[in-house]
Amino acid sequence: TYFAGIDAGSTYVKAALMDENQALVAFDQRPTGIDADGTSQKMIAAMAEANGIPADHIQNIIATGYSRRIISMARDTVTEIKAHARGAAWSAPNSIGIRTVIDIGGQDSKVIVLDGDNEILNFAMNDKCAAGTGRFLESLARVLELDISELGPLSLQSNMPLSINSTCVVFAESEVVSLVARKKKREDIVAGIHHSLAKRIAAMARKAGAQPGILLTGGGGRNAGIASALDEALLMDIHVPEYPQLNGALGAALIGMTED
Amino acid sequence: TYFAGIDAGSTYVKAALMDENQALVAFDQRPTGIDADGTSQKMIAAMAEANGIPADHIQNIIATGYSRRIISMARDTVTEIKAHARGAAWSAPNSIGIRTVIDIGGQDSKVIVLDGDNEILNFAMNDKCAAGTGRFLESLARVLELDISELGPLSLQSNMPLSINSTCVVFAESEVVSLVARKKKREDIVAGIHHSLAKRIAAMARKAGAQPGILLTGGGGRNAGIASALDEALLMDIHVPEYPQLNGALGAALIGMTED
Ligand code: SF4
Repeated sequence: TYFAGIDAGSTYVKAALMDENQALVAFDQRPTGIDADGTSQKMIAAMAEANGIPADHIQNIIATGYSRRIISMARDTVTEIKAHARGAAWSAPNSIGIRTVIDIGGQDSKVIVLDGDNEILNFAMNDKCAAGTGRFLESLARVLELDISELGPLSLQSNMPLSINSTCVVFAESEVVSLVARKKKREDIVAGIHHSLAKRIAAMARKAGAQPGILLTGGGGRNAGIASALDEALLMDIHVPEYPQLNGALGAALIGMTED
Repeated sequence: TYFAGIDAGSTYVKAALMDENQALVAFDQRPTGIDADGTSQKMIAAMAEANGIPADHIQNIIATGYSRRIISMARDTVTEIKAHARGAAWSAPNSIGIRTVIDIGGQDSKVIVLDGDNEILNFAMNDKCAAGTGRFLESLARVLELDISELGPLSLQSNMPLSINSTCVVFAESEVVSLVARKKKREDIVAGIHHSLAKRIAAMARKAGAQPGILLTGGGGRNAGIASALDEALLMDIHVPEYPQLNGALGAALIGMTED
């Protein structure tokens, strides 16, 4: 018997397939495209086939994420907050007790504070200002003509992060253009960008009442420069799971196991 | 005897040359470039020469704007708020009593509330979030592959302005891309963009205590679509001067006449 979770985000659909012992059997991530439902169906079918699992052995499929309501295969939906909270304990490396999930996605960012029993105490979400989301990194990577995956490794080479004064993505773009024109080192610019994003996320986390035992998920979790800048800004250890972007889908699959 | 005002903004330098009777003799606007001081010197020299005015007949030069402190020809500097307040009475069309100046520039926007004697009662300024400035229009014009000067006339053709839900420039860009993909009319998109900017400016104006008798200056004053959307959002008549972008430079020149 298997359980699937689909996290249908605005940019990517993430899917996780687990067995009844909570082992991760397969996972996939694809651009959402114009048909999140069709994309999800293809992903589940491909994962099932690759693992020789007949469709009717998938007992429950739960959808989460921005487009969760249009996923026709899903028997139920859960909010991203609930899915991330549920995924946290599974995702936590080395059985660390997670008390706060910080999810930095391409279009929004969230902070979810949990009690010792993994129940949600509080959460905060930003999807209004791109400056507090992965879009900040995406926009500035474009200005620097870098792929977003290059930002993390590059920033770790910096000994002297520059400070980015503009809090707005649009104004920060101009600021980065002028730093490049002034021949500043790219690693120092990128490190400055990470500190700038980390500062904003840390402010949101503190306001939400973040507790030590922090799990960093979403695209932000794949960027070692963000993890390190966030560690400095919050003065709390940041734990990064093996599959940061899968946390919501994993949580949805796990919820499907205990649901009925 | 002549008086000059230089408004050295982050994008453009604007200059006004007036005679002792407050008549506008010449004006000029040039991209600031990397040397705002040099640009200003060239502009003043060119205006003087074109009008056969010997340099020593310019009795006073006052600078305002972001780069005012580096303008070496200026005998003194004034804040943009003061310059705009002083320029308002001169700029007002048909001797309308101006009680509020709304200045929408490329990098910031301001609301200045005046009493009946042209004294500053209150002001508000936004230079942190590009969504409340001309940059919002500039970014979205680029997405629509339009020149910023085309926005006003185009939007006036719209009978059904679309609503733009994102308040953030970055997210609004994506929203406009998707409206274009859905084959929405460009004039309705542009009208929606103007209403979105007008809503934010109106909120700032109301908070600052805007009074009827409104003068719209800066680049925003050159866009008839913004004037009309602002009229609707504030439910107050919007007056546009002949030279909306010159108001700060005019105010600086006028201050130079009465200064010593
Ligand atoms: S500050 Fe910049 S990034 Fe944030 S909402 Fe405003 S325009 Fe968007």
